[in-house]
Amino acid sequence: MDKIIISVILSFVLALALGVVIIPMLKRLKLGQNIRDDGPKSHFTKAGTPTMGGIIFIIPIILVSLAMAGGTYDYILVAVLSTLGFSAIGFIDDFIKIYLRRSLGLRAYQKIIGQIIVSVLLAFYVYRTAGSGVHIPFFNKEWNLGVFYIPLISLGIIYMVNSVNLTDGLDGLASGVSVIVAMTMSVIAFFSSYALQDDGFTYMANNYQNLAIFSGAITGACLGFLRFNVHPAKVFMGDTGSMALGGGITAVMVLMRMPILLLILGGIYVAESMSVILQVISFKSRGKRIFRMSPIHHHFELGGMPETRVVAMFMIVTAILCLIGLLAV
Amino acid sequence: MDKIIISVILSFVLALALGVVIIPMLKRLKLGQNIRDDGPKSHFTKAGTPTMGGIIFIIPIILVSLAMAGGTYDYILVAVLSTLGFSAIGFIDDFIKIYLRRSLGLRAYQKIIGQIIVSVLLAFYVYRTAGSGVHIPFFNKEWNLGVFYIPLISLGIIYMVNSVNLTDGLDGLASGVSVIVAMTMSVIAFFSSYALQDDGFTYMANNYQNLAIFSGAITGACLGFLRFNVHPAKVFMGDTGSMALGGGITAVMVLMRMPILLLILGGIYVAESMSVILQVISFKSRGKRIFRMSPIHHHFELGGMPETRVVAMFMIVTAILCLIGLLAV
Repeated sequence: MDKIIISVILSFVLALALGVVIIPMLKRLKLGQNIRDDGPKSHFTKAGTPTMGGIIFIIPIILVSLAMAGGTYDYILVAVLSTLGFSAIGFIDDFIKIYLRRSLGLRAYQKIIGQIIVSVLLAFYVYRTAGSGVHIPFFNKEWNLGVFYIPLISLGIIYMVNSVNLTDGLDGLASGVSVIVAMTMSVIAFFSSYALQDDGFTYMANNYQNLAIFSGAITGACLGFLRFNVHPAKVFMGDTGSMALGGGITAVMVLMRMPILLLILGGIYVAESMSVILQVISFKSRGKRIFRMSPIHHHFELGGMPETRVVAMFMIVTAILCLIGLLAV
Repeated sequence: MDKIIISVILSFVLALALGVVIIPMLKRLKLGQNIRDDGPKSHFTKAGTPTMGGIIFIIPIILVSLAMAGGTYDYILVAVLSTLGFSAIGFIDDFIKIYLRRSLGLRAYQKIIGQIIVSVLLAFYVYRTAGSGVHIPFFNKEWNLGVFYIPLISLGIIYMVNSVNLTDGLDGLASGVSVIVAMTMSVIAFFSSYALQDDGFTYMANNYQNLAIFSGAITGACLGFLRFNVHPAKVFMGDTGSMALGGGITAVMVLMRMPILLLILGGIYVAESMSVILQVISFKSRGKRIFRMSPIHHHFELGGMPETRVVAMFMIVTAILCLIGLLAV
């Protein structure tokens, strides 16, 4: 357990240090966020806050987790590659927004193509190494998806990564929620690793131990980033950051064959993207909106709830969902 | 572990429900906080927010932990009594503030007498049942305090309870920090219980298991309370709440013979009270202040840091201290 805790602390310290160095650089490069012109008006004052701050936690996640990992690097490398792959898509998006000075970046189809490539590769890897079974929460059973594994899981990965991306809309929201989710994943990976070791599956136990270290690094790095990202934010993570988080978190849960459990732990991510989907469906079919604005965090804000309280509420809900998730493993 | 997680969830849900019922009642009873007239000016707008909200988490802590506990109730009852004892002192204090409409409540010597009684009883109980040894963090050794146990530990208890009390000065600060500290205590109690069980100390293992449940209940109840206490706060915990938290948290750590470790986990509490002590010493001896204002959270606020960021920073520091604490057990 000590290695996991140390990786949390190290990545926290590194993220803090990077924040101090990188935020002034981002500001000088004028990488300020162009606030969505269709978002709440109260957010227009946020223009000028530097974005692409995700690198503040991406670097510690990768450096610290690889430094602390040991034995077999198979799973942790896949998690790192997924983080980097999705982050690259987000980075290109952020870059276009800033250089072309548009509020919206890559075309939708361009993003989707990139995401399909990374997610199919990830799903294919897990299919080949761990088979087509997924853990069913609360029932302690495996559900064999058979030939549907790759298409279903790829879709699921794309869905979750974009859900994390949508969650990043209030100061400290995506990073705060992800701290709790990643910490829980680390606990689950740790206990799973222990159980696997007891059953003699040393190779897999090693992989899970490394995933616990990787999740610990996400926890610490996001915690360090939160220092700068909490309301009033000095920096935003950008798509660079939110796609990286989505890629890392989703990869760990898919590698542990617990993609369904991620729907519980990351219930807030799911609520964010579902609110967008439902809003669009409702508006197109009935001409009426369900929410004042989607994603759902804006709905609460426009209902008069202060931004800080929405963020706290979503983090509290995540804490409870993660506890339920621990019961469900 | 399931019982601990369930007690977190139950006490969370109960605190949420109580918050919805009790806050309007407190408002109607006009139990609004009279803001310290020597505090930061920006806090004057907080007058009118109902206080004594601590009952929102005290009731769930006691009901849920006693309902979920099993086997021997010795330790958990002592923890509950310490919570209630200190809370009673805080309650009288709050009551006087509201009825006599003074910003300051009980006289200092009256508070101290009450605190000495409760803390000596607690220290005496532990001395008689668990001896005079305390765990030394990082060294995995016991330090035998001998005849100094009762005076030293009583002083330590009074110091820590008042430190928690001082921490309660910004929206969500004391509750937010205590969520993390209590969660960590729950983890430590759980693992200790496991180890004791393995070594055949069934009775003590049972006691520690119950302390893990009790700490879990603090975690959940504070998390529920945070929903209302986060900035901008709808309710304050009052001394009723902060003394209860201090009493509960300190009791658990003393019962586990880890009072020194509490100085690490609760480093923020310690920093808060040390800042007050140093400020007074410096002002009386040199005529100069060290901090812009004490307790130290006001120092950061007056330095221009927004309240929300001070709270986030203190919570983040607590998270890291708790991780270090886990390494030190």
